[in-house]
Amino acid sequence: MTKSNQKEVLENLGKKLVDQVKKGKNPEIVFRLRNLTNIIYDKKTRTLKLGDKTSSRSFFNLAHAKKFLQTVEVASVIKKELLESGKHEHLRGVFYMTKRTIPKTNVNLVDEQTETDKAIEDLEVITGLSREELHVSANKMGSMVGNVILGDSGDVIDCSKLGKGGYSIPSITDELELKKVSAKYVLYMEKAAIFERLNEDKFWQKNNCILVTSQGQTTRGIRRLLQRLAEEESLPIYVLCDGDVYGAYIYSVVKYGSIALAHASERLTIPSVKYIGITMDDVIKYDLKRHLIKLTEQDIARIKQVTEYDWFKDNKEWQRQFKIMKELNGKVEIQSLSAKGISFISEHYLPEKIKNKEFLE
Amino acid sequence: MTKSNQKEVLENLGKKLVDQVKKGKNPEIVFRLRNLTNIIYDKKTRTLKLGDKTSSRSFFNLAHAKKFLQTVEVASVIKKELLESGKHEHLRGVFYMTKRTIPKTNVNLVDEQTETDKAIEDLEVITGLSREELHVSANKMGSMVGNVILGDSGDVIDCSKLGKGGYSIPSITDELELKKVSAKYVLYMEKAAIFERLNEDKFWQKNNCILVTSQGQTTRGIRRLLQRLAEEESLPIYVLCDGDVYGAYIYSVVKYGSIALAHASERLTIPSVKYIGITMDDVIKYDLKRHLIKLTEQDIARIKQVTEYDWFKDNKEWQRQFKIMKELNGKVEIQSLSAKGISFISEHYLPEKIKNKEFLE
Repeated sequence: MTKSNQKEVLENLGKKLVDQVKKGKNPEIVFRLRNLTNIIYDKKTRTLKLGDKTSSRSFFNLAHAKKFLQTVEVASVIKKELLESGKHEHLRGVFYMTKRTIPKTNVNLVDEQTETDKAIEDLEVITGLSREELHVSANKMGSMVGNVILGDSGDVIDCSKLGKGGYSIPSITDELELKKVSAKYVLYMEKAAIFERLNEDKFWQKNNCILVTSQGQTTRGIRRLLQRLAEEESLPIYVLCDGDVYGAYIYSVVKYGSIALAHASERLTIPSVKYIGITMDDVIKYDLKRHLIKLTEQDIARIKQVTEYDWFKDNKEWQRQFKIMKELNGKVEIQSLSAKGISFISEHYLPEKIKNKEFLE
Repeated sequence: MTKSNQKEVLENLGKKLVDQVKKGKNPEIVFRLRNLTNIIYDKKTRTLKLGDKTSSRSFFNLAHAKKFLQTVEVASVIKKELLESGKHEHLRGVFYMTKRTIPKTNVNLVDEQTETDKAIEDLEVITGLSREELHVSANKMGSMVGNVILGDSGDVIDCSKLGKGGYSIPSITDELELKKVSAKYVLYMEKAAIFERLNEDKFWQKNNCILVTSQGQTTRGIRRLLQRLAEEESLPIYVLCDGDVYGAYIYSVVKYGSIALAHASERLTIPSVKYIGITMDDVIKYDLKRHLIKLTEQDIARIKQVTEYDWFKDNKEWQRQFKIMKELNGKVEIQSLSAKGISFISEHYLPEKIKNKEFLE
């Protein structure tokens, strides 16, 4: 969607409300419900998404009035301050830009950032525009190297010429141009330490791929970037995590989406993504049993929870993984492969898994 | 120091121990104590550093034997696996490379990463080599943009041509080449959101500077990079943090060092660094009082603690800051400047502060 379209969508939202006021009606916004009762796992598309239940928010309703105002004010700030200037603002900044006392009262329009955050998520559902299209950013995180040339704000960036550091992924990746992608696949890993190991070993050069790391949570920016590489460039995406329930969950968010962002699934999930490791089978095959870390009570509870999620429930392979995890009463870290030699991961483990197509779906 | 020197230092450490064994002596390593009783704030150099007290670790001493072995084994792993291959490994990887059962016993050489971490810190003190020179890395974090051209592992990286993303700072920055630095100063900020704001506004281009952010803690890699820009390129370094006690502490670590890394002060601290904001005076001057966030009990306790640190105790300006903080009973975030306009920070706040030289030392 072009930028003038984005402004138009918000303008039309405002015009509709003004029309209702002029007609003497109670101004009202109708949009799809975002709570748990309306989040479904669609087995066909294999994504978490919103159902058809709707909710409304009207001005002359004591329970709605403040939220109604907040939604309209945030829409106004986004249109006037962000879309019209072409600039982007962080969630925290939008909060401060919205924070003011309602004239002739001592009531603040917003007191906490959670209020503007919610209004922004509502606007995503109301307008069909993503938060990124509304020019609102969140955490900047992660790095990328490999055989891909990007266009970013007029600069041409060759990610195969960025040394040990790499390209620092911006919070919004929708606007990046994928100028030339000669890589054959993408390896996404949760740990920056592994990224540095593989980058130092020039793994991406020897195996003609792209390396992406998040240094923590998989931000929307990273998810969208991976999705674009999968959809626009038809690249396979492989996810490399620790062999524990948290790694499995990181993978599932990239693949199926998350409850909190079910309304944005279309722009974020990647059904084709595959899990490359570490699996419980690797623990046996690569003799990592002595590096197992005993499960805590918290781990065991989390395994129980995740096992029962709709998107894992019917997945025999993953159920088997969780079962072995419990039987071995252990989890394993990617770094334990270092015990077999500093470059075992880049010279043996990953090439073998990719050659033999040993993935979990 | 060149790489062959680094190997030599470790080899000599080993040779000395072998000599002691051959002479029938109890092998022993003597090095400066790293605990609190030996950490001093040197008023002249304005850095935290180790005093002259020493400690020894010998093999035939029940209390020392395991630590002695760990230190020697880590030294051996670093020499054989890292320095000889020219590769780098993360702290966690060194742990796994060291972890094994001592032959003919059921005792593990190390059970926890804290043991190898300590051994590595000890080796820094013993050898005078930094962890980075020993090829051991830690967290990779942070981004950089601006008028600086780097040499990184054979690649030439122009940080003025990296779009909205920027250069992703590696965990070890000692080996980066500062090829061409035309910037006049460096602005280091704790928050990636502010980095994105300033980068989108091309602040570094308009003001001929370099922007660095850490997205969290100031890693050793970032501290060393800032120090090199200060020392090798004689650039002023300005630190931009939230107006709270945690911001003040972030600044103090960059400037004076930290207790945990007192032994590495020489390679990490930057006495010339200046604090640009946000100050408590800014709260008044820029009318940010309504954006003050009330101090928590934890904040108040931390202010009391930090106020009494040697390196803040004699600093009238900072004492004044903490006093106003307590009087206003509030702290303020950098993002609150957004309430005055999305680019107020880049068009007014920062240029004015720099022009008027309104810094805290």
